Amino acid sequence: MVEFIQPILWKDDSLYILNQLKLPETTEYNSKKTIQEVFHAIKDMELRGAPLIGITAAYGMYIGIKDASANNHRSFMELVRENAEYLRQSRPTAVNLFWAIDRMVKRAAELEDKSLDEKKYLLLEEAIEIQKEDESINRSIGENFMPLLRDGIRILTHCNAGSLATAKYGTATAPMYIAKEKGWAMKVFADETRPYLQGARLTSYELHQAEIDVTLICDNMAGFLMSQGKVDVVIVGADRVAANGDTANKIGTMSLAVLANHFKIPFYVAVPTPSIDLATPTGKEIPIEERSPLEVTSWYGKQIAPEGINVYNPAFDITPHALITAFVTEKGIVLPDYQINLQKLLVK
Amino acid sequence: MVEFIQPILWKDDSLYILNQLKLPETTEYNSKKTIQEVFHAIKDMELRGAPLIGITAAYGMYIGIKDASANNHRSFMELVRENAEYLRQSRPTAVNLFWAIDRMVKRAAELEDKSLDEKKYLLLEEAIEIQKEDESINRSIGENFMPLLRDGIRILTHCNAGSLATAKYGTATAPMYIAKEKGWAMKVFADETRPYLQGARLTSYELHQAEIDVTLICDNMAGFLMSQGKVDVVIVGADRVAANGDTANKIGTMSLAVLANHFKIPFYVAVPTPSIDLATPTGKEIPIEERSPLEVTSWYGKQIAPEGINVYNPAFDITPHALITAFVTEKGIVLPDYQINLQKLLVK
Repeated sequence: MVEFIQPILWKDDSLYILNQLKLPETTEYNSKKTIQEVFHAIKDMELRGAPLIGITAAYGMYIGIKDASANNHRSFMELVRENAEYLRQSRPTAVNLFWAIDRMVKRAAELEDKSLDEKKYLLLEEAIEIQKEDESINRSIGENFMPLLRDGIRILTHCNAGSLATAKYGTATAPMYIAKEKGWAMKVFADETRPYLQGARLTSYELHQAEIDVTLICDNMAGFLMSQGKVDVVIVGADRVAANGDTANKIGTMSLAVLANHFKIPFYVAVPTPSIDLATPTGKEIPIEERSPLEVTSWYGKQIAPEGINVYNPAFDITPHALITAFVTEKGIVLPDYQINLQKLLVK
Repeated sequence: MVEFIQPILWKDDSLYILNQLKLPETTEYNSKKTIQEVFHAIKDMELRGAPLIGITAAYGMYIGIKDASANNHRSFMELVRENAEYLRQSRPTAVNLFWAIDRMVKRAAELEDKSLDEKKYLLLEEAIEIQKEDESINRSIGENFMPLLRDGIRILTHCNAGSLATAKYGTATAPMYIAKEKGWAMKVFADETRPYLQGARLTSYELHQAEIDVTLICDNMAGFLMSQGKVDVVIVGADRVAANGDTANKIGTMSLAVLANHFKIPFYVAVPTPSIDLATPTGKEIPIEERSPLEVTSWYGKQIAPEGINVYNPAFDITPHALITAFVTEKGIVLPDYQINLQKLLVK
């Protein structure tokens, strides 16, 4: 049995959220009993990862109505819409957040002829369903990876596209968990992923908990491992894939792709189809977020660079499609020509 | 006028050492009045960098005899040899350390017919001479770079092969200081260089002090900068160069070379000829030091990775000679075929 870290738990009619800000030092679940508490958990980044934010917001929508006493559908829907408006403000750029909230509102609107208790029950079911769907997408991604891997494989990954960002399997980590279920031996190298250290704090934490053999390295050591023949495949997640296959992901991903290409190591991107955006023609059209210099120059309040120094801190980079060996989605593996094959996949 | 950071100062018959452990938060010089204090400054890494360790040890050898009252040459030499034996233990693998100590012992042995005061004076002169020679080598490296650069150049560098590791100019930083003297515009990107952060703490600090336009990045951002056309050349130092041109340098250097090669950016190695080791045929014969996991998993006492996690922490990597555009030494520029041309250079 693989031991999964559960970033959120629904238990005893309460939502428990693992506070990722305290990882890896402290594993602390806090129960969220009000929609305000859910709002702040998202806003203050107790949890992160687009799919997980969506799932949490769906539970938040249920929590927002579970003690409601609205005596007609109209006032019930007023409350639902108010809650939706409120939760939308928690992380204004997270697409999954809006999608999950809208889905809960739509479901509520369908329940006009149900009793108040039935409405509450069915909305809880919808939130659980959203979580299950994410879990199922990720499990399929993991299973679809299997023909590309083998017993004893040595995998390098970057950032955290794992359990802690999604429901259960993660995306880039899904094949690791599936391989572990199959009883395969495996070695995973996790880049620490500066500046925010998702690899050190989160990926190595969740894989270690799952008793997967994980070794933490600094980002600048990945190429050296490859040069020594210690890496068989690179597997990363994606924030957005353009129509031609250019892929936005955590800063450092593109460099790994160049290195993998140089050392003739397959470079795979694990991605759920909702993150493939055919409306974006190429990587050039994907805006790159620049974040605060403080992420680079200070460390838990300790200054590690000179006062007033210039810093460049892009959060993402673009991996050109030509450096990607294959995409692995819940609908199957996609090989080049991506311009043609990604479109085919999405209309399947 | 370029403002140089002085990692050590000889002033008022005392050695002042800039405590690099406290950089960049605090600029603190401590005077070292006894050979024991010099020993501990080296051992405890108040200063680092092979050339600088050698220079400091030379001053330490003088400090060890400056209050001596030996009434004959034989007992004077006994003290010198005792001191040498003692200082040798400070950093047992530093080649420049042994070289500088041996040179001071040899000089002392030549002074049999001098008075005690003359011996003391001439040994101080020798230490100063060792420092001046290093300064002169580095200045020549910087000057020899000039035909490869131009006004307005954008340089990426890694780790600290700067003033803080040598006397005055550094090696990889020497062309930056010389270009600054010439009044050239310039933009330098400094990799922070995990895990020890020499780039964040030292390189960006010394260039900032010298009023050179420096921008700090995380190691995993260098490739993205190159992909955007923001880097004209990469300049790094070297710990050891093998006879065929394979180069050991701080971990991450080889990945930069692969990236530079991919983006068709020249990749230059700044190296004094004493670091070219013809007795080592290729990079394969250079041992790679692995350092403590703690450098990766903790930070000023703060734990940033799970308890008991595996860590791989090599301190150096090997850049294959084929990825190096040129070496720049104090004797001139060396182009491929390195197997032939490095040998030619050394017998010049």
